[in-house]
Parts: sequence; structure tokens; C-alpha cells
Amino acid sequence: MSILFQVTDPVVLLGQQVSLLWIVIGAALVVFMQAGFALVETGFCRAKHAAHVVSTNFAIFGLGFIGFFFVGFAFAFGGFSYSAFGMTAPVGKALIGSGDWVFLWQGGWAISGKAITPAVLGFFLYMAAFMDTTATIPTGSMAERWKWKSFVLWGIFCGAIYYPLFAAWTWGGGWLARTWSTMSLGAGYVDFAGSGVVHSVGGVAALTGAYVLGPRIGKFDRDGRPRAIPGHHIPMAMLGTFILLFGWFGFNAASTFAATDVQFATAATNTAIAAAFGGVAGMMWITRRTGKPDPGMMANGMLAGLVAITAPCAFIAPWAAAVIGVIAGVLVIESVFFVERRLKIDDPVGAISVHGACGIFGVLSVGIFSNGSYGGGWNGSTSTGIEGIIKGNWGQLGAQALGVLVILVVNGGLSFAFFTIQKRLTKGGIRSAPDDEIQGLDIPEMGVHAYPEFAGAH
Amino acid sequence: MSILFQVTDPVVLLGQQVSLLWIVIGAALVVFMQAGFALVETGFCRAKHAAHVVSTNFAIFGLGFIGFFFVGFAFAFGGFSYSAFGMTAPVGKALIGSGDWVFLWQGGWAISGKAITPAVLGFFLYMAAFMDTTATIPTGSMAERWKWKSFVLWGIFCGAIYYPLFAAWTWGGGWLARTWSTMSLGAGYVDFAGSGVVHSVGGVAALTGAYVLGPRIGKFDRDGRPRAIPGHHIPMAMLGTFILLFGWFGFNAASTFAATDVQFATAATNTAIAAAFGGVAGMMWITRRTGKPDPGMMANGMLAGLVAITAPCAFIAPWAAAVIGVIAGVLVIESVFFVERRLKIDDPVGAISVHGACGIFGVLSVGIFSNGSYGGGWNGSTSTGIEGIIKGNWGQLGAQALGVLVILVVNGGLSFAFFTIQKRLTKGGIRSAPDDEIQGLDIPEMGVHAYPEFAGAH
Amino acid sequence: MSILFQVTDPVVLLGQQVSLLWIVIGAALVVFMQAGFALVETGFCRAKHAAHVVSTNFAIFGLGFIGFFFVGFAFAFGGFSYSAFGMTAPVGKALIGSGDWVFLWQGGWAISGKAITPAVLGFFLYMAAFMDTTATIPTGSMAERWKWKSFVLWGIFCGAIYYPLFAAWTWGGGWLARTWSTMSLGAGYVDFAGSGVVHSVGGVAALTGAYVLGPRIGKFDRDGRPRAIPGHHIPMAMLGTFILLFGWFGFNAASTFAATDVQFATAATNTAIAAAFGGVAGMMWITRRTGKPDPGMMANGMLAGLVAITAPCAFIAPWAAAVIGVIAGVLVIESVFFVERRLKIDDPVGAISVHGACGIFGVLSVGIFSNGSYGGGWNGSTSTGIEGIIKGNWGQLGAQALGVLVILVVNGGLSFAFFTIQKRLTKGGIRSAPDDEIQGLDIPEMGVHAYPEFAGAH
Repeated sequence: MSILFQVTDPVVLLGQQVSLLWIVIGAALVVFMQAGFALVETGFCRAKHAAHVVSTNFAIFGLGFIGFFFVGFAFAFGGFSYSAFGMTAPVGKALIGSGDWVFLWQGGWAISGKAITPAVLGFFLYMAAFMDTTATIPTGSMAERWKWKSFVLWGIFCGAIYYPLFAAWTWGGGWLARTWSTMSLGAGYVDFAGSGVVHSVGGVAALTGAYVLGPRIGKFDRDGRPRAIPGHHIPMAMLGTFILLFGWFGFNAASTFAATDVQFATAATNTAIAAAFGGVAGMMWITRRTGKPDPGMMANGMLAGLVAITAPCAFIAPWAAAVIGVIAGVLVIESVFFVERRLKIDDPVGAISVHGACGIFGVLSVGIFSNGSYGGGWNGSTSTGIEGIIKGNWGQLGAQALGVLVILVVNGGLSFAFFTIQKRLTKGGIRSAPDDEIQGLDIPEMGVHAYPEFAGAH
Repeated sequence: MSILFQVTDPVVLLGQQVSLLWIVIGAALVVFMQAGFALVETGFCRAKHAAHVVSTNFAIFGLGFIGFFFVGFAFAFGGFSYSAFGMTAPVGKALIGSGDWVFLWQGGWAISGKAITPAVLGFFLYMAAFMDTTATIPTGSMAERWKWKSFVLWGIFCGAIYYPLFAAWTWGGGWLARTWSTMSLGAGYVDFAGSGVVHSVGGVAALTGAYVLGPRIGKFDRDGRPRAIPGHHIPMAMLGTFILLFGWFGFNAASTFAATDVQFATAATNTAIAAAFGGVAGMMWITRRTGKPDPGMMANGMLAGLVAITAPCAFIAPWAAAVIGVIAGVLVIESVFFVERRLKIDDPVGAISVHGACGIFGVLSVGIFSNGSYGGGWNGSTSTGIEGIIKGNWGQLGAQALGVLVILVVNGGLSFAFFTIQKRLTKGGIRSAPDDEIQGLDIPEMGVHAYPEFAGAH
Repeated sequence: MSILFQVTDPVVLLGQQVSLLWIVIGAALVVFMQAGFALVETGFCRAKHAAHVVSTNFAIFGLGFIGFFFVGFAFAFGGFSYSAFGMTAPVGKALIGSGDWVFLWQGGWAISGKAITPAVLGFFLYMAAFMDTTATIPTGSMAERWKWKSFVLWGIFCGAIYYPLFAAWTWGGGWLARTWSTMSLGAGYVDFAGSGVVHSVGGVAALTGAYVLGPRIGKFDRDGRPRAIPGHHIPMAMLGTFILLFGWFGFNAASTFAATDVQFATAATNTAIAAAFGGVAGMMWITRRTGKPDPGMMANGMLAGLVAITAPCAFIAPWAAAVIGVIAGVLVIESVFFVERRLKIDDPVGAISVHGACGIFGVLSVGIFSNGSYGGGWNGSTSTGIEGIIKGNWGQLGAQALGVLVILVVNGGLSFAFFTIQKRLTKGGIRSAPDDEIQGLDIPEMGVHAYPEFAGAH
């Protein structure tokens, strides 16, 4: 896609127009994923908090968006050389500057300026939807005890600063994308649709946020053993999972940024394969562990497959997508147990495991399963297909591991600092009052019950 | 798009084929919005009426569609000169006639005749989905007390007559679209995707319908003060809002009618911006007014932004979309209070304010914020970009204000007459029996409970 | 679409790329239909089984997919001559072989091998989504009493064997598709998007499965008269129906397999017409029969129209789509009564009638209403438009009737054998224990309640 449509060849121009259409359709699908997150998280929480949980998932769309609109997009993609995707004209300079260490800028605030063409607007929309996915992940792990006003600040912070940082270093053409050149690591950090950039980055914030907030009252008994707190609405959570599956086709397949790059079909199909195998693996593994095909773990198994396939989906063969799905479906369950039993962190919906653990696995799997059939590295490396250790190439895994390390250290540190500082500076902290939590957050925080007429629901 | 695909240039032909595909995908998205309306309206009503409310929103799809199929489409687009959108052949004549004062016709009933090509069928589908949006708006304001049989007649009337009238005068190329020529008013009435044609027209019917029906039993106390009647299912209403946001990308962006007109990306992105800012503005404004971030007003704030951006989305800059979203998010709340406290009209879901008030604001905002970067007027004016008062052009605002006046007077009068006459001619009126209303309409009107097993829900 | 993109003409190539995009978007829509089935079936069942019902509809996606991934796709499309759709190179041979009596193969297992291009992957994804629709149909008729482990086997069997058989004989280019040549029957068996291949085949399994399983405890009184068992969540079922309507645009319109074949618009619009008329006809017919516009029958009326239009949607005029919708909307209600009162088979959601009866009607309606405007037969017959008896051609109806006969005999026999053998070989049979059924399957089978906090829901 040319961001500027400066071509004169009518066939190339039509291809670019349709590519932009594909990005807009993809963006709509990713925006719709917000509904999926809202339903999964609300369904897996308790009825007395349902208005609060669904409202955080609702409001995050606008809060993150506004932060990204004013400054986040400029931060993340100011140094973006649009020619990386075969675009005919670099917009980076006109928009906000460039440089190896992206996170400096010259303009582009509030989506204004001469560089704002329909194509840049479409690209902004798609990227804003990705950012909102990151922003909504901690609403799951911090559910049922997060003060509304503190949540509001997170939303803006995530859209403005937290998400754009790692995005700039990778998709924005920053130093992690360039490690192919600076450190000879494969094609540099490669993440087709964001197992790392979106999911791990969100999952790490989910981890630090839940840690700073502490567990829900009653989650652990006196001996520190976790108690099961069942979700209040299984069909709601499963509908949410299906909406996520549906939206994920936009998330992964439209990340070709081009209708003329038929690898979108490979990405879409590998996505479905990983989802199918992840869901079934989760079902079988939880049956093996507990004797029952727990619906929550079935859903999380599918989501685990989806998160893990997001980075490698365009670079691997169908068999590898199946393997990644199976591993993710098992990993998510083991991770849920680990987080709860070892780390003693309370994550009501499993967000840390789904997005954090499986996101990291997805990032690494690019360095393992990529078969060299497709490029995708930033800048000069695009001509080379991405190759993982199955092709005897260990450099790519190095780049991926470096990315994971950065996410853990930088994003872990940044989100931990954000929540800790916010906790200290906010009167009464960032956690709801214990009485409110016991009663249910709906009335004290939101002013309404989720289900005022259903007996037992509040 | 050429409706007839008479071109021989293979690139132009492919562009037209893909444009038709875009219209069909857009139509599917707009059809899906019916689910959004159903969930928003049902969630904001009470459980004892839930089967009735959801069923009106379900049945309206078919009822309006059938009216539009047999006569409405012919009424609305019989005089439509398809060359207005750069089409190569006028179909108007072959289809149903033409003329400045559209609403005469020669054929095209029941989507039959020689002019019915795949392209006309796609256009019909897209327009039918728009009509159904109008038709479903009064099911919100008239909820919980509308007799089923009376509702059925409204659905057919709206699809056959009520919606097509204003559509013919504007999108169909009628006199309002031509005021650029007859009255030198800007580019004539311009409404990119229907803040006026769809939403205000529906909102006005919602107003007159709710007025004729009267408030729900118990809505106002003896002194005429309104009582709050909370919705029974907040997550349902929020899912509905997200579905509407998703579908709105089809509503607004596909209104370019062309995949080759990349302004679809501008329309889509401005739509998301207004939704984000509208939702957050609504959240902040209701917190200021009541102390709590009421989920209902958050959702209505987003919908307000969406309704308002619908007319101007292709003609304005991103900053203007943000401003429009903020104004709409505040306006909808003030309007809800005004309708309830001053007009003493009972609108269970806020449909009058969301679609009526914010629709009118959207129509006017074309005449305020349009920056001249894009055309869109009917017929001979298309070469000129639409300019509002920010470009020193007051004529466009005049055309828009005239459109608003016509909606208020003509559609207000027509819908008021319809409901009043129907009330007089129908034995027992158009309102459910008081006993049925108190008991809940589900059993008396529909024969089933929405939730027969949940305690407290009926 | 060329599966191999071997063309050099840039316009043709771009058209093929966009066609593949259309298939992928269509596949995403069809995958999303799984959510619709899940909600319709769960909403029409009882709350105490809701976690079980929604989980079968969830898990079937992965189970069927895995069966289809490993062997089903190879079985169904191994002999597929891709040139049938105007493709430039036959992939069949490279993939799995060919022959008149398709069901032999040479490779293509687990979506591996040299023939696996992005285009074949997109085709696989689309076809896998269709297969899953078939697989999920019996989860409705067998709901509330089906043992989880037995269900799991069905999912894999359907994806691996049951669905691919009839698909191979029709869409795969097998003997039913070739009866135009071997028996001079019209253009051979024609089924644009699968009223037969998907819906009747699934409906027949729904019938045999429900028969082998027997009715739910308490469904029939001592005299064999059926008792009404109302669904527990009407809005859920209606949301599901709207999701199905939305997804059906992908199901039917994307079955052109080409963005350059504008008949996708005809297919989409006829689909909406049949849905609208089917829903309204169902509403009116049930009101005539019972005095109330039962929401369940409204929804089933729309689904009936959708199922019936699936086979003929590209071959008929809009008026015929309306007629087909009306007939299907009436037929589904009569069929529900017939299945329950005459056959004494308990089908909790009406799956046998919606998919079986209306699917058969849809298959036959190709032979009745096709107007010769569009081709679609397999292989050499494509140049001829499909003509039904309204054009004086009885041969097409013969081919269709033969297809119906094969579905009834072969698929009926195969599914009956599967369930019967499974029942005998499985310790305790394929039906849940009576105590579990009375208590609700959620705890005994799934380990969780669907709604643990709502009073009355378990």
C-alpha cells in the first residue's frame, strides 16, 4: 500500500485502494474484539461486579483511543518508514521524524498535519484498535477490585505512552526491529500481528497490576491456598470467545497491510488452525487434570492458541500452527495454576496466562517454526524469508528472545512503576474499598446493578 | 460504481466489481446492527417485557424490509440518477422515473423489471438495511407498552412510505438535494450516511410515537416527576453498543459506494474518533451531573457520537470528529433530561435523544465543520468540496437547516398522524392493556417469558 | 480464482487476489456463525443444561476442524478440479487424485504437500467453516441429554468422514455433480452454498441422533403427547439468529468464490429477502396456529428462509426468494409439529425442521425456481444457466431430487449407523445418566454451573 497513492499505474493504484479497504475492514474486526473481551471478562467474573467489569471493558475503548489519538500514534509511528511495506513514499519524515532509536518526534499530534491522508487515517485506525487490545488486558486480571478513577488513568496512560513504546521499537522501525543489522540477529525482532507487541505487553501489565492490587477478598484461604471463584455467566464468556475468534481474522490476516499479498490467507488459516487445536488441547488437558472439560479452560485454550499464533501466523506451515495451538492450550492451563498457586497472584479471568505466557510463547515460536517462505522483517531484511531453528537458523530466536526480555524488563518495570506510583499518589490507593468489594462494585462505583431484577445477582 | 457494468476497461470494471463487493459487505454490517439495537433496547428495559422488546427489534427487520421491497425502494430511488456517483449509465428512467419532485414513479415494484441487475440488488440491500435502522428506532422509545399488532403496522408503513419520503428528497435526488441549484444553498442538502435521512427521521417518529402512546405506568409520580426505571441487563446493552459500533463502519465507510474512493478510510476513522470521544464525554458529563459514570450514559454517549458523525464523517478533519463526539456526548445527556423532565415524555432507552437530537446536530455539523476537501452533493455540485462555516460558507448550513426543518415538520407530522390515526382506528388503541403492562408484556403479547427460569425476571 | 496465481496479466492477477480476500472474509463470517448456533441452541434449552449446550457448540468448532484438517478435506476435495470455477490450473491431481467416483485419494493429509498454496489454504478455511456448520446441527436436536464423550466422537467423525462424503460427490466433483452427463439431469446436482451439502446433511444426522438418543425425560406424557419445554433465554436465541443472518452473507455470497463474479450481490440480496419473508411468514403462521407471535417460531422462520435460500440464491429472481422464504417459514412450523407429534422425536431447538426439512426444500427449489440467468453446474455444464421447472426444465429437479434421496438414504444410514454402533460400543450408552439429566448436565458433565449465582437457574 502506498500511503500517498502517488502511483500512476491504474492497476497498482487499484491494488492500493483495495489494500486500504482491507485495512479498514480489518480495523473494524479488531474494534469488534473489544466486545469479545468485555464478554469474556464479565462472564468469568461475579454478577455483583458485572456492571463494573463490563464498563471498564467498554470505557477502555475511548480512553485508550484518546491517549493514542493525541500522542500515542505519534510516539509509536513517528519514525515509521512506510517504504518498509513496499510503499512508494516514506511518510515518516513528514509525519514525525525517524531514527534508529525511535521515540523522538517532530509532529503528528492529534492526527493533524499535512501527512494525514486517508491511508494514514486507515493505518491509524487499525493501530488504535490494536492498542486498545493491549489496554483492555489488565481489566481482566484487575477485575472486581479496581477503583474506577484509577482505571481511567490507566486507559489514557496505555494509549499515550505504555503501548507506543514497544510498538515504536518494533513495528515503528526502532532498534529491536533493526537487530538484524546491529546484532546480526535473524531478520531482527519479527512479530507479524503482535503476540508480543500487543498481547505480551498487555499481559505483563496485567501481571504487575494484579500484583500491586493484591488478590480479591476471599481468593486465598488462611494457608494461602486459592479458592475457586466461578464465573457468573458461561454462555456470555463463550460468546465473547467466539467474537474474539472472529475479530482475530482481522487482527492477523489484515496485518499483511495489502490485499495484493495473498499471505493473508495463510495467516487467516493458520489462525483458525491454532484456535481449533488450542481449544481442543485445553479441553483435553483440563479433563486430564480435573476430570471435567471445564468450559472456562476450553475457552482459554482457544484464546491461548490465538494469542500464540499471532506472531508467527504468516511464516509457518499448517502443521506448525497445529503444534503451536496444542502447546498453547496446555501452557495456558499450567500457567493459570502456576500464577495462582505459586505466584499467589489473583487473576480472575486468566489474562496473565492467556496474553502474557502464550504471547511470549508466540514471540519465541517465530524463531522456532518459521520456514523461510515469507519475509517480514523491517526494512532491508524483507527480501529474506524468516527462518527459525527448524531451518537451522538460531539468530531469529535470539532476536525474539531479546524482544521478550525487553517486554519483561521494560514493560514490566514501566507498568509496575505506573501502578505503584499511582497507588501512592492516589488518596485511598487504586483499590476499591473492602466494603464496596464485598457488596459488589456495581452500586458504589457505577451507581447501577448489572441485573437489578434477577434474584441472586447482587 | 456503474450499476450496469457497461465499461470495457478491465481495470475500471474490476474497480466496479470490488466496489459492489464493498457495498455488499457494508450491507451485511448494517444488517448486523439490528442485533445491536435489539440488545441495547432490551438491556435497558425491564425483564418482564424482554421477550416483547427483543421481538419487536427482531421482527422489524422483516416487516420494514417487506414494505421496502414492494414499494419503498421504488418510492425512494425511482428518480435516482445513478450518474450522480460517477456511474456510467442512468438507471433511474428504466427503474422508476425521475424529476425534481421525486415521489412519482413508473415501475420497479417488488424489485422486478429489467433494471434489476446484481448492482441494483446490492444497492437495494444496502438501502434496505438503512431503512430498517430508521424503523427500529421507535421500538426503543415506545417499548414496554406498545401493542404487537400496532407495531407490525408501523414496520410495514415505515418501510413502504415513511422512510422513503425523505430519502427520495435527499439521496434519491429530490428537491432537498437540489437546493444548491434552486436556492443557491451550498451543495444542497448533504448527508453522507444519514444522520438526518436515517437517524433524525427515526428519532422524530420515536418522539411522536412515545408522545401518542403516553408514559409507562409509574414512570411519573403524582407531581409529574420522573422516576428512574433501571435497565435489567447492563452487559446486554453494552454488547449491543459494541455491535452498533462495529456495524457503523459499514454504515458510514461503505457510503462511499466505491472501493476506489479511499475517502472510506476517512469516514471510518472519523466514525471511530467520534465514538471514542462521545463515549468518554458522556461518561465524564454524567459523572459531573450525578457523581457516577453511569454505564447507560456511557453507551448512549458513544451512540450519540456515532449518530452525529454519520452525516459529516467524510467531509471533516479528525479534530472536528473529536469535537463533534464531545458535543454529542454531552448533548445526549442533556437531551435525555430535557425530554423526561420538561417534555414529560417517557423514552425508556433514550432513542429520541440519541437519534433525534444528535441526528439533527449531525446534519447541522456538515454545515459547520466541512473543510472543502471532499465533494458529495447531488448531481452537478459534486465537483465542489463541501464547505461549512469554518471555511466561511454559510450556504451549506442553510441547506442543512432546511433539511432539519423538513424532518421536524414533514416527518414529525407524518408520524404523528400515523400513530394518532392508528390509535383511533384500532379497537382498544395502540397501547397494551394496563394489566398486561403491569404484569409484563411477555406472556400476554408474545405467549412466552423471556427468562422463564430465572427468579425475579417475570 | 486461480488457486495457483499463475497468470501474468496484472488485472487478472489482482482480481484473483481480491477473490481470495473475499473467500477469507467469507470464511470469517461463516466461522462466526458458530456463535449464532451456540446462542440459538443454548437460549432455546433450559438453564440447568446451559453450560453443557453452549460447550458442545463451542467445542464442535475445534473437534470437527481437526477431523477435517487431518483427513476430511482430502476426502472431500481430493478429486476437485479447480478449473471448474475458472481456475487456470487443476490442483486436484497434485492434491489427492480425481475420478468420477470421488473418494479415493493420493495425498493432501493434514493440509500438507506441495499443492498447499495460500489460495488452497483459504479454500480449506472456507470449507472447514461449512463443515463445522453441519457438525453443530445435531448438538441442537440432541441437546440436554447427550454424553460429552459421545459428542466428542461425533465431532471428529463428522469432520473426518460424515461431512466429506456428500461434499465429495457434489462440490468435490463426484458422481452427483456429474449426473448432467451420466443421466442427462439438468446441470447435475447443483447446490450453490449448501442447503443440501451442509444443512440437509446435518439435519439428517440431527434426526437420526435424536431418534437413537430418545426424548428428554418428561418431554412426552404417558399418552405420548408432547409437553412444551420453553427455552430459558429468548434474547440470547434472537441474538444468535441475528448473528446467523449476518454470517450467512459470507456463507451464500462468498460462494461465488470470486470478487469478480458480481452474482455475489444477487446471492446476498436474495438471502436477505428470504430471511425477511421467512421470519414474517413464521410469525404470521404461528399466530394463526396458536394466537401468539411466538419469538421462537419467528426466529426459526428466519432461519428456515436462510436455509432454504442457500442452494438457489444465485440462480433465482427476487420474487422467487420471497416465495421461498414464505414457504420455508410455514414449512418449518408444520415440520416442528410433525416431528414432535407424529414422529414423536424430541428436538429441543427445531434443528431437524430448520436444517433438514427446509434444507431439502432448498435443494428442490433450485430445480423449481432457477431462471437460467446464471450457471454453476460442475465441469462442462457451467456455460449453461441453471433452469428449473419455471423455465420448463424438469431435468434439474430430477438431479436435485436424486441428491435429496442420497442424503436421506446414505447420510441417514451412515449417521444412524454411527450413533447406533456408538451406543452399543460405549459403556452406558451415548446418553447421560437419568439423574444427571434431571439435575441438569452442567455439574455432572462440565463441572460448572452456567449461572451459579442466578436464583432458579440450576
